Amino acid sequence: MPRFKLTIEYDGTDYVGWQRQDNGPSIQAAIEEAVRRYCQVETLVQCAGRTDSGVHARGQVAHVDLPRDDAPDAVAKAINAHLRPQPIAVINAERVSDAFHARFSAIERGYVYRILNRRAPPTLEANHVWWVSPPLDAALMHEAAAVLVGKHDFSSFRATACQSDSAVKTLDALTVSRDGDIISIAARARSFLHHQMRNITGTLRLVGEHRWSVADVVAARDARDRAAGGPTAPSTGLCLMHVKYPADAV
Amino acid sequence: MPRFKLTIEYDGTDYVGWQRQDNGPSIQAAIEEAVRRYCQVETLVQCAGRTDSGVHARGQVAHVDLPRDDAPDAVAKAINAHLRPQPIAVINAERVSDAFHARFSAIERGYVYRILNRRAPPTLEANHVWWVSPPLDAALMHEAAAVLVGKHDFSSFRATACQSDSAVKTLDALTVSRDGDIISIAARARSFLHHQMRNITGTLRLVGEHRWSVADVVAARDARDRAAGGPTAPSTGLCLMHVKYPADAV
Repeated sequence: MPRFKLTIEYDGTDYVGWQRQDNGPSIQAAIEEAVRRYCQVETLVQCAGRTDSGVHARGQVAHVDLPRDDAPDAVAKAINAHLRPQPIAVINAERVSDAFHARFSAIERGYVYRILNRRAPPTLEANHVWWVSPPLDAALMHEAAAVLVGKHDFSSFRATACQSDSAVKTLDALTVSRDGDIISIAARARSFLHHQMRNITGTLRLVGEHRWSVADVVAARDARDRAAGGPTAPSTGLCLMHVKYPADAV
Repeated sequence: MPRFKLTIEYDGTDYVGWQRQDNGPSIQAAIEEAVRRYCQVETLVQCAGRTDSGVHARGQVAHVDLPRDDAPDAVAKAINAHLRPQPIAVINAERVSDAFHARFSAIERGYVYRILNRRAPPTLEANHVWWVSPPLDAALMHEAAAVLVGKHDFSSFRATACQSDSAVKTLDALTVSRDGDIISIAARARSFLHHQMRNITGTLRLVGEHRWSVADVVAARDARDRAAGGPTAPSTGLCLMHVKYPADAV
C-alpha cells in the first residue's frame, strides 16, 4: 500500500493529545477517522512527536499507508474535508517509500514555547501562550538557556513518567527572544524527553524573575534529579514547529 | 469624575461587535458591566472605533469616567479581574483630562486584515483570518492598494448602511505584504467608513487572483458606487491595531 507523509497543523486545546486514548478526543483518532471515511479502511497514523494535551503543532509529521494511490494534494484535500470543522489540517502530503517512518526517520524536532509577559491576561492568544505577569528578563533567560545546549543528562528536566531509555540527549539549540510582550523559547534536538521543553521553560521562568541565577540552572542540570529542576510550564504555550528528515528519507 | 483612557484588546469572535445591542453580548456591555462591579455605578465606555461582530482588536481605545481616582494600573487590574474569563482585557490605562475623547480626539486608526492563503483550512488561526485557497499575487495586490492611498471618494467601498456624512476620506497608508501563508493588508487613516477595510480587502482579493487588474480598481474607485466595488471580506480577518492621539491630548 502506498505510504504518505503528512505535515499536520492543529490546535491542541480541546484534545487529550496526539495519542489515541480512552478519556477523550485525540488528534490521532480524529485523523484516523477522517482517513477511514475517505478510504473505507482502518489505518494507523504514526507521528514524529506525540504531543501532550493542550500542546499545538504547526509542523507535526505523520505517515499512513493508504489503499489507494491518489495524488498527494488530493489526499490532503480529502482528509481535510473529513476533518472539518475540527482545528486539525493536513498542510502538506507527499508520497514516500515504505522505508520512511515519521518517528524513526526523523533527525530533528523543533519546538517553540511562547510566554505572554504582561500584566493583562491573554485574549487573542488565550490557550496559545503561558501568561506570566511579573516582568521577565529575557536576556538573562537566554544566557541561562545556553548552559543547557549540548549533550547532557536531562534527568532534572524529565517527567517522572518519561519512558525514554536514557535521559542523555543533545540539545542542538535553545534560544530565548522577546518581541513586545511575547517571549519565545525555541529549541531544536534530534529528540526530546517527556515534558523536557515544559520543564526547561518552568526553570527559565525562575531565571527571568531573578529568583534563580544562571549558576542555579547549571547546578539543577548537574543534579540529574527531577526534584532539582524548576516547575513544569503549562502545555498551552508549547507548539511543535517542524520535524526534519535526511534528504534521502523519502 | 476622573477620566481614564483604556487601551483594550479583544477576540471579537463571540460578540455582536463593540456596540451594546439587544441581540447578543457586546464588548462595550462586557466592559461596562466589569466597571459596574468594580465601582458600583453605571458608566458609559466610549471607544475610538466601533468594530463589527467578529472583528478583533489589539489596540482599541476607550475612555470612561470613574467615581474613584485609583492608580491607572489598579484600574486596569480591577476591570480585568471582573472581565475574566472573557477574551477582553485592558492592556493599558492612563489618567486623562476631561478634554480627552476616545473617538473625537483620535487622529489616526490603524487596521490590519489577515488572509490565510493556502489550500489547507485554518486551525490555529481559525476565526482570526480569512481563508482564501487560490494562490494570491500579493505583489500585485500591493500595487493595486497604492491607487487607493490618498484623498478619495470611497463610495464604492462603503457599506450601504454607513452613517458617515461624507464618503470622502484620506487613506494615509495601504500596504499588502506576504509572510509565508499569511497576507497582511495594513491601513492607516484618520477615520474609516463602515466596512471600508473589508470592502477594500474583498476587492484586492480579486486583483490577487488576477480576475481584476489595477486599472479595474481605479475604475471601481472612480465609479463612486458600491455596486462597482468588490465583495465584502468576512469580519474574522480584521483587527483594529492602534489608535493615535495628538501628543497634547491627555
